[in-house]
Amino acid sequence: MRLLIVGFGFLGKSLVKAIRNKIDLLKSVDHNFKIIGVADSKGYLYSSKGLIIEELSALNRLSEHKEYKTSETAAELISKDLCDIIVEVTPTNIINGEPGLTHITQALKNGIHVVTANKGPLVLAFKQLTSLAEKNGCDLLYEGTVAGAIPVFSLVRECLQGDKIVKLSGILNGTVNYILSRMHFEEISFEIALKEAQERGIAEKDPSYDIDGIDAACKVVILANAIMGRNAKLQDVERIGIRGITQEAISLAKKANYAIKLIGTVDKKLEVSPKLVPINHPLCVHGTLNAIHIQTDLAKEITLVGHGAGKETVSAILNDLITILKKRSPEDKNP
Amino acid sequence: MRLLIVGFGFLGKSLVKAIRNKIDLLKSVDHNFKIIGVADSKGYLYSSKGLIIEELSALNRLSEHKEYKTSETAAELISKDLCDIIVEVTPTNIINGEPGLTHITQALKNGIHVVTANKGPLVLAFKQLTSLAEKNGCDLLYEGTVAGAIPVFSLVRECLQGDKIVKLSGILNGTVNYILSRMHFEEISFEIALKEAQERGIAEKDPSYDIDGIDAACKVVILANAIMGRNAKLQDVERIGIRGITQEAISLAKKANYAIKLIGTVDKKLEVSPKLVPINHPLCVHGTLNAIHIQTDLAKEITLVGHGAGKETVSAILNDLITILKKRSPEDKNP
Repeated sequence: MRLLIVGFGFLGKSLVKAIRNKIDLLKSVDHNFKIIGVADSKGYLYSSKGLIIEELSALNRLSEHKEYKTSETAAELISKDLCDIIVEVTPTNIINGEPGLTHITQALKNGIHVVTANKGPLVLAFKQLTSLAEKNGCDLLYEGTVAGAIPVFSLVRECLQGDKIVKLSGILNGTVNYILSRMHFEEISFEIALKEAQERGIAEKDPSYDIDGIDAACKVVILANAIMGRNAKLQDVERIGIRGITQEAISLAKKANYAIKLIGTVDKKLEVSPKLVPINHPLCVHGTLNAIHIQTDLAKEITLVGHGAGKETVSAILNDLITILKKRSPEDKNP
Repeated sequence: MRLLIVGFGFLGKSLVKAIRNKIDLLKSVDHNFKIIGVADSKGYLYSSKGLIIEELSALNRLSEHKEYKTSETAAELISKDLCDIIVEVTPTNIINGEPGLTHITQALKNGIHVVTANKGPLVLAFKQLTSLAEKNGCDLLYEGTVAGAIPVFSLVRECLQGDKIVKLSGILNGTVNYILSRMHFEEISFEIALKEAQERGIAEKDPSYDIDGIDAACKVVILANAIMGRNAKLQDVERIGIRGITQEAISLAKKANYAIKLIGTVDKKLEVSPKLVPINHPLCVHGTLNAIHIQTDLAKEITLVGHGAGKETVSAILNDLITILKKRSPEDKNP
């Protein structure tokens, strides 16, 4: 299968490096696997024979390459039917989903399978995109959109096939969890913990997307729609962030063997809010870790813990990619 | 597909009840799905048209049913090619694996798929059984053998397909974890915690299988063979149990923000021994919970927490069953 990677930021570059390291594995699944193109916001590299992965993985920017072209946009490339699958890893935009929404829509319309780690399009247009994928016989996988490397969607799809999922709750934002963990263990104020997180590159200069729970709410929407079959939008999530959490509140909780955590919940109600979590509960993980607690009728409870962001997310993207290669590649895997 | 359930103890009965509740789901995967037989250690029920599941699920013992027969053993039934798949849930026997080993071997020789939660045969004969399955084009799935409802094998198989698994460590025995947790939180002695566990039915009268780490070592063997491709035997596991753990040791650990946990490790060395685990580590779960910490090259670390025993294990069995039904049922799912 012919892959087009759309987006060459941190995640796109990490993916290319992982594909370089795992090329034998990928070829064992689909001996025709090749990267035919990589696009960034300004231009692209393309070769119908497949780009040279060693060259690609050495690039810091696509434009460093002598074959870099700017004559077409990523959306135009996708519409030309040059590829069988795209990995969409442009930056999340929850205002209008662009440019990811156009990329994914265009791909699905053209019968091209999609793997994405881009929350925006799925938060804004989950039903439209999944319906479009179904109508056109395409796969649309998005494991990397929620809790980074934690494989929650594939776990539910492949490992809990007999279970009915009853409720989901999770620590879905590593920045917030880092701040709350520092407040808990170091007994520092919210302001200092936030500043520290910013200095360490864990929090953005404008941290509101994280600390006001918007990012976690986006993940709640995707979880609700993907796992519980809802048709939820961002405005359906009741949301309280962590700006009001004082050191006093954290200390009181700690004395009673609780930690205050920002919990996203998919139950009858969709919610993101600070909650008291017993210190011994499996969900009560610290630092930048994320965790998802899945309540079901048979297994009762399964908790998954892992890295919620960073290059670990490539694990999720690669698993989605291999899932589609296995399902969709012609049978003659070993010619 | 025609299912024969071998074993009608706690797990067999729980499975029948779950199948009753999920029959629509199972039929949606394979419209020909039926339970054609259930065998216990003395006899069996059989109907080529399929047993009536409502009747089955009301039985406390198979022999209560008027059609109960004792003319053939389970192994004889399996060898008669009456079924396409067996679920083997007879009691674990790590001395010679019987009767499970004969049941599973017989099934695989006859081209019958196998789902099992029975550790014995897999601990004693992992390579032989998986080779036999491969040779005869059969599936052999055993999610329920390790850590009950925690779907570790299907997670690695389906959700971490691009990752290389580097190391596994886990709390693999709920009885031991219960005892250590009580010692940690209630500051009671090993002897009292054990007695309490026995009174609550969590520990056996002869607790050595659990507290000497034999059960955990069995799981280490299966994990090592199934996930890391080893050819390990029980005697390859260095094993220390928890009889020597004093309240003093637990208290000292606790003061330093550690808990003493019995950890099974699959690394270069295979090991079961008490270890200091930081209280804030995701693996540090309490009560009867089990946890498995998976280290990989891409995702870095994924921790899975859940119930390690009890009827929750039916989740794992049912997922294995559905996996095989999906893979092996004829395409005409919706006639």
